[in-house]
Order: sequence, then structure tokens, then C-alpha cells
Amino acid sequence: MRSRHHALITVACAASMLTACGTGPVPTTLPTPAPAPATVSVPAPTRIAIAHAIIPRPASVMLVEGSIFVVDTTTMVVVAPGAGAEVERIATYVLTLLGRPPATAPRRLVAADTIPARSIYLRLSDESTLGDEGYRLDVTPSLVTITARRPAGLFYAVQTMRQLLPVSIEHPAARNRALRIPAGVVIDAPRYAWRGSMFDVARHFLPLDDLRRHVDRMALYKLNRLHLHLSDDQGWRVEIKSWPALTQVGGSTQVGGGAGGWYTQEQFAELARYAAERYVTIVPEIDMPGHTNAALASYAGLNCGGVTPPLYTGTRVGFSTLCVASDSTYRFVDDVVRELAALTPSPWFHIGGDEVEKLTHDEYRAFIERVQGIVRSHGRRMIGWGEIAPATLDSGTIVQHWKTDSSAVHAARGGKVILSPNKRAYLDMKYDSSTILGLRWAGLIDVRDAYDWNPAEQIPGVEERSVMGVEAPLWAETLVKAEDWEFMAFPRLLAIAEVGWSTPERDFEAFRQRLAAHGPRLAALGVNFFRSSQVPWW
Amino acid sequence: MRSRHHALITVACAASMLTACGTGPVPTTLPTPAPAPATVSVPAPTRIAIAHAIIPRPASVMLVEGSIFVVDTTTMVVVAPGAGAEVERIATYVLTLLGRPPATAPRRLVAADTIPARSIYLRLSDESTLGDEGYRLDVTPSLVTITARRPAGLFYAVQTMRQLLPVSIEHPAARNRALRIPAGVVIDAPRYAWRGSMFDVARHFLPLDDLRRHVDRMALYKLNRLHLHLSDDQGWRVEIKSWPALTQVGGSTQVGGGAGGWYTQEQFAELARYAAERYVTIVPEIDMPGHTNAALASYAGLNCGGVTPPLYTGTRVGFSTLCVASDSTYRFVDDVVRELAALTPSPWFHIGGDEVEKLTHDEYRAFIERVQGIVRSHGRRMIGWGEIAPATLDSGTIVQHWKTDSSAVHAARGGKVILSPNKRAYLDMKYDSSTILGLRWAGLIDVRDAYDWNPAEQIPGVEERSVMGVEAPLWAETLVKAEDWEFMAFPRLLAIAEVGWSTPERDFEAFRQRLAAHGPRLAALGVNFFRSSQVPWW
Repeated sequence: MRSRHHALITVACAASMLTACGTGPVPTTLPTPAPAPATVSVPAPTRIAIAHAIIPRPASVMLVEGSIFVVDTTTMVVVAPGAGAEVERIATYVLTLLGRPPATAPRRLVAADTIPARSIYLRLSDESTLGDEGYRLDVTPSLVTITARRPAGLFYAVQTMRQLLPVSIEHPAARNRALRIPAGVVIDAPRYAWRGSMFDVARHFLPLDDLRRHVDRMALYKLNRLHLHLSDDQGWRVEIKSWPALTQVGGSTQVGGGAGGWYTQEQFAELARYAAERYVTIVPEIDMPGHTNAALASYAGLNCGGVTPPLYTGTRVGFSTLCVASDSTYRFVDDVVRELAALTPSPWFHIGGDEVEKLTHDEYRAFIERVQGIVRSHGRRMIGWGEIAPATLDSGTIVQHWKTDSSAVHAARGGKVILSPNKRAYLDMKYDSSTILGLRWAGLIDVRDAYDWNPAEQIPGVEERSVMGVEAPLWAETLVKAEDWEFMAFPRLLAIAEVGWSTPERDFEAFRQRLAAHGPRLAALGVNFFRSSQVPWW
Repeated sequence: MRSRHHALITVACAASMLTACGTGPVPTTLPTPAPAPATVSVPAPTRIAIAHAIIPRPASVMLVEGSIFVVDTTTMVVVAPGAGAEVERIATYVLTLLGRPPATAPRRLVAADTIPARSIYLRLSDESTLGDEGYRLDVTPSLVTITARRPAGLFYAVQTMRQLLPVSIEHPAARNRALRIPAGVVIDAPRYAWRGSMFDVARHFLPLDDLRRHVDRMALYKLNRLHLHLSDDQGWRVEIKSWPALTQVGGSTQVGGGAGGWYTQEQFAELARYAAERYVTIVPEIDMPGHTNAALASYAGLNCGGVTPPLYTGTRVGFSTLCVASDSTYRFVDDVVRELAALTPSPWFHIGGDEVEKLTHDEYRAFIERVQGIVRSHGRRMIGWGEIAPATLDSGTIVQHWKTDSSAVHAARGGKVILSPNKRAYLDMKYDSSTILGLRWAGLIDVRDAYDWNPAEQIPGVEERSVMGVEAPLWAETLVKAEDWEFMAFPRLLAIAEVGWSTPERDFEAFRQRLAAHGPRLAALGVNFFRSSQVPWW
């Protein structure tokens, strides 16, 4: 919010599959839209104002100094006829972003040869080579053209455009907003398909509105998977209609003994829809066979002894397990997977599988394999924490690495791995020794620790081709209110977003400068972020 | 959240009606509780660690260096038998504050001669001379004793104790919280009975949860009136059962054309109860006869022409008025006052009365006087903005000063004035020229501007005896989400809280040091506050 000199810094151009930037002509993998009223003239090499810092760093950014596109009340958002409902919805999203009620704001459907000047034009093109999430953003003083092969790419281009707009874009009712976009070209596509944030809503319950708000913030930083840890010893957080006590009993408390809470199926499905419109997939996790005390306390039949244990509000791990010898356990798993799979378009189902201390290795492996079959029978790919890797897994099953494990075994059989190394990506670790919230068993993780690593060099035997992507888990033993989750997630989640999206070059100095420029934006969004001393915040 | 050297600074002792501090023995206006296990030994003069900065500044603070009371899992909260439900509720509030579920935490009812050591003891005493909101807080290494004449005083003592506890008090699930209270004595009472925050929920709607959260934060800073501006040209925000279109039509939009919103009567009553338990009175304002377009658009009969105007989503003022010549207007006013008065224990009803441009002076005065009678007939005292002062007002009516007005006329007739001078207390004014949100017609208001003034020296003819207190209005033309309200309100509202509570000495240097120490606390509460460059934030 403070005025500053907008220092110009050089942004490293990424050596990507797209093009070398600053060393040649503008990439032309995409045709320039037919009626572009002005030719984009890009000087090379280029420099970018830090005010226009983009996170995650795009593959290629070339901005024209001193040349801008001005958004005003006459600016139209334009789509071609027949562009489809999804592109239409993104156009509406752009109007909302610009602070205009969609009902009254100018928006036009136009034929491709009649694009009016001073428009923001969204177009899909099969000619694009930028993949399902890539995009090209062309800004001239008279036209913004966004091209992508799929709607997700258009959406991400809009997020880049949003970051190129001043912070006042986040305050739609502010007066005298000078909405200017620097002219130039951004060409971009993600490194990994999986760029995830995990929230533990089991140890403490988090209301739906707060999850919705988190989805919005994820979208700004091009994160696309919200993994919800929906059950644990201390709580069961989503309604299962065929097993109602799971929430009525198991959802009634949380760490420390508060009232807990849960999502109805309708709420959960609504969240999944909301997220999908922002290109975020809600990935449900029901942790099993351990971390199940809330379920065991709800149904005697899930316990081998047939006796329900009391509800648990402490923070120990490893003491609970479903009765893996009982057929009713697998009927339970089948019901849970079936009901939850129907609520989200997620092709994945996360079965947890971590920290089981009450079973033999053989019992554990047999359980995981049988559950894998159940998940497969519902048309979903199974995900499990690293402990599942030694079991006989389908190559389509995904292993989520969090500590030393056998994920290389899974990579060797052609399987994919999600990287969540606890010393880099565990957002429940304290930033430094003075952080009140969080834990420290995996060490202190300040911004640089979260940023300075390469997912393809983390585990011997798990190389680029085996890496599905990255995810930052946030466990909630010490978190009570949404602002606590925010404090631990931000700004480290932006570092993880860049690790997942951008090419592997890590220039922390450049990153911290860009991150500093995002401080006012995070504040404008109301994010209660940690002002790390590693970052020269504006 | 960052570890710092806890610089010791001298806190100015207030020359108050209570006692001189630092110049004599511990005040003894209250008997020391009978079984206090240790005598409080207070060195004089005293110094206070800035880590224990209290806002608003108490009348007298004496802390004993190096001597502490330790809160642990065995600490009991103790009340005498027969203390009553209200004191019991405050005891439960203390337990919640300490992070203990009230159902399981130790709490005891004891006779006055059996107070166990290591307790926090709450007691009412008619012997107290500290008024309805004053308190005495005695902390020794073995006992915390809180004494007040009324429960409100106990509650404020608890807020002082909360500020004396480290920031981890605001994180009940954090590990290894070292909850220590410095030993000493705080004796305190407010300067003014009215210490208000006003939220405009008409220009943009603010959900109930956000109001509830604001009440919590007000309580921490001993603010006791939440004035809600519930209607304006752009929206009507509270259900009136006898005039349902007010919300169904008038509540359906807001500035900029969003969806608006409103509170049901049940929700409003629930908010009033929630606030009352925190010693905050919800004061409803229905602005009239101007600022009424939302009502006029809902009922043709309220318009002199009998024709409803369209809903309005702009930000002009002065163009609307109820039809003051029509009896049905007064039936409307009577219904509205009756229904709202039944929802809150507020003895006051705010009728607005500002910025009327469509009536003659005589029409306006006659309207105000007739409405005053209606408000009186429902057992309430009327409050109106400064423009009402020239009318013939009861001496029990209250004038809220916001710009140059005739409030001295009201003071001369024995009436009371609430001070909200726009150059000091208008929280919708920008902090500085780079603030994106807010307006600037009254000037820029940084923290010092909000702090450095004396309500009794603001208006010639309105002196201490005529000042009911202070209030900080926050108008919402440019505010969309709760974090926007927070950004404009904090930290300036803390300055206003001190202007309203503390004796008139203003030492901005000391205040900004104390305010700096509150930064981590505001962050822990999740408040999106402005990091003013006037304050050396931790």
C-alpha cells in the first residue's frame, strides 16, 4: 500500500521448451490473432518492472517498456460465437475481476474478423502447442489477446493478466483505479500437471467459506489440486449417508476438544463445483487403515474387538487401525469411496495409508492392495502416502512422498510420484524459532527452504518422468481459525507454486524480489501472511 | 512473531481520579482479597516491559519486574458461590481464553475464605469506587485477583490480563505456550461511557460472522458500542416483518450492483446477544429522512409522488427523502423503531438525520421532532447526526458530531454529544496518498491524526461534561470484503479506543511503541491491519 520506487530488475528468461527469450524473435508457435490492430514490437533483451512481478515465473515474459493497455468502463471482453459455455464463464470471471457486474458490463460475442479495438479477446486454438494448461497472452495498447488450447489455459492467462494489473484490481469498489496492463507477450505452460495444496481439516475443522477463499487464492498462483485430509483420529469431516454416525459422532470434536464440524454432501459437491470453475480439483482423502479413531469411535463393527474407543482429542499418531481382517471393513471402504467419488470430478481418491503401527507388514500390504481394487472399481486412481509403495500397486496408482520411503520402487514400475518432502513442503513446520504456531520435527522452513529445491532431484530413482508434481501439506494440530492456516501457508505456498509450475532454475534473489512485490497484493486479498525477514516486503 | 529484545520503556502514569502512580503506596480503595497468599510489593516508580503494552492505557499500571504468575493446566478460575450467572459466564470466558474446553477445565466455586493458591479469582465488590466499568487487577506469583463493582469491570480486567499474557494466548492450540502474567497491580476505569465503532453495512453488506469477529476485537480494546448503519440509499440490511419489501427489494443490491444482503431479525437479535456478552451494545441506525432510496424503492407509499424510484448503486448523497408530509411515513417509522428496539437491549435508537437536501429547514425540523417522539414512545433515547441539533430536542437525546454543526446548542440545553470529528475519527479516510481504499474529502488520517486529540476540546461550547464519548465511523463505499473493513479500521480504531478510555494526556511516542507491540497480537487474531510507517512494528 506504500508508494515505492518501482525498481526495474532483470527477470531471468527460462530455457524452456517454448522458446529462448531475449535472444531471438517473438515466438511464433501460435498465429497472431487475425485482426490485431497493432503489431507487437518486442525489444530484446527485455526488462520487467518489479511491479509486474509474476508468480509462478512464466516460461517467457517480454514486456514493452512504456507501452500499456488501459482498462476502462468501455473495455469489452470478447469471445467468438460458439466458443462454448466454459469460455463464456471465463469471460464473466474477467468482468467480475474488473469490478463490473456481469449483467450490465459490456461483453460481446463477435466473429473472428470483427474484434473491436480496446477489447480483451479470449480464444481457443487447436493450433496451440502449449498443452492443456499453457497460454499465450499478447498485450498491445489497443488489444489484449489470450490464446490457449483449453479453457484452463485461458484461465491461467487471466491470472497472469491479473498479476500484471496493479493491486487496485483486487479492490473492485476502490475509486480512481488506474487499471493498466503493460504491453508485451507472455508465453507460458506448467512444468508439472500436479500443483497441490493440502489442508488438514480433520485435526481442526475449517468452515466451507474458508476453503472457498483458499481456492480463489490457489487459482491466482496457478495451483490446481486442493487435497483435503477429511478424516483422522480426531475427526471425520464429510457426510457419508450410508454411515451417518461418522459425522454425527466422529465429526463432533477436534484436537483440544472443541465442537468439530463437517461438510454435508451437498456442501462438499458445491465446493468441488466452485473449485472446478477455478481449475482446482478437490481431491478427497480418507486416511486408512490408521488415523481412524474417529471412525472407530462411531461404529463398533469397524473395531476388531467390536468395542468403540472413546473420541480422541490429543495429537498422538499410530495407535488406531480399522479391523483389516473383517469383511465389513471393506464394505465400509466401498461405501465411503463410492459416495465421495460421486461428489467430485476428481479422477483420484486418496486413501492415506500413513503411520500404521498396529498391523504387520503383510496385513498392511494386503489391506492396501484390496483397497486399491475398491478404488479402481469406482473408476478412480488411488493415491497414498509413501508407506504404500512396497505393496503391489498398479502403475496408475500414485505415491505421495513425504519422508524417506520406497517411492523409487513405484517409479521403477512406471508409477508416478507426488513430491511433498517434509523438509521443503510441510507448511505446518515453523518458519523460525519464534513462530508460535506449527511444529518443528522436520525442521524450520523459511521461504528459501520452501523454494530452493528441484522435485526431480529429491529422491534417487525418482526422476523427471516419474514426477507427477508437488504438493504442500498443511497439518492442523495447532491451527484453530482460518487466519492460522493462512499464516502457515503464505507465503511459502507461493514458493511451492513456483517449484511446481516453473522451469527448474532457482534464483532466490529474483524470487524474493517478486515475492516482496506480492506483499501488497496478498494484503489486499486479506491474506494473513507471515512477513518473513528473508523477503524485502514493500 | 519475531523474537526481539523486549525494550523497557517508561509508561507515563496517569493523573487520574484513581491514584497517582509511581509516587506513593499501592492504592487501597479496594480491600485486598482476604486470603491473598502473598503481599503485593510494588516498587515505585515502576517501568513496564513493552511486551506488556496495554491499549487503551490504563489509569494506573504498576508491574513488579521479574515476578510472574504462571498459567498452567492446573490453574483454576474461581468465583464465589452466589456470584451469579454473569460472573460465571465471565469465568467460562476466561477458561476459553486459556484454551481449555469449559466442560473439562478446572473451575471452582469457593467461599471467600478458601481461595486455593494458583487461581484466577473473580469477585464483585460493592466497595469498589471504580464505577460500572472500572476494575482492579492484582497479580502475585500465587494468585490473580480481579475486583470490580459490576461484571463489565471484571470483563475489562480480563482483557487487560489478556494483553499482559504473551501473544500465544491468542493461539489456544499452539504447543509449549508459556502463559505468564507479570505480577503487579492495574487500577483502571474509563474516561467516557461511550466508546464506539460504527460500521456502514448499507453501502456494502457485511456478513454476520464478520460482525461477530469485530465485536471480539472491540472487546479486546474495551470498546463498548457497535453502531450499525443499517440503511442507506444503496441498501436496507435488517428485516422488518411488517414491511418485508425493505429487505426483499431494498436489500437486494449495494454499491456497484452486487447482490447485497440483509440480516434476519433472528440473526440480528443473536448478534445483539453475542455482543452483550462481550459488553458491546449494538446500536441500530435507520437513516432518515434522507439516505432512504432503498426504502423508497421498496414502497411507493413512502414517496410523495407515490412512485418508486429505481434501486440505486452509485455513491452520491442528498437526493432522497421520505415523504415527510404523509402520515404513512410516520406509521412506517413507528413500525421500524418498534421492531428493531425489540431486538437489542440498546437504550438508544439512531435515526441518522444527516445530509438532507430535499426539504426546507422547517420540514426537516418538524420531521426530526416527530420522530423523536416516536423513539421516546418506544422507551428509547434518540441519537442523530449533528444536523439534528437545531431542532427542539429532549436533553436526553444525543447528538453525534461529525462536521461543523450546532452541537454546542445541544450542550447548552444539557444534552450529550458523541464526538466523531471527520478529520480524526472517520476511518474511511485514506491513511496516506498511496492508500487504495477509502476517500479523502476530510483529509488523510494516519495513526497520529486519529490519536492526538481531546474530545473535550474539539468544539467550542462542548466541554467535558457534555461529552458522552467518542465513535469512529467507517463508511463503506469502497469496501467489499471483511478484510477491507479491517484494513481501514485497524490500527486507527485502537487510537480512538484510547482517546475514549484513557485520561487526556497524549504521548504519541509512547502510544506508537505500545501499538508496535500489538502488531503480532493483531496478526495472531488475523486482523488485516495497515502497517503504518508511523509505527515501529515488531
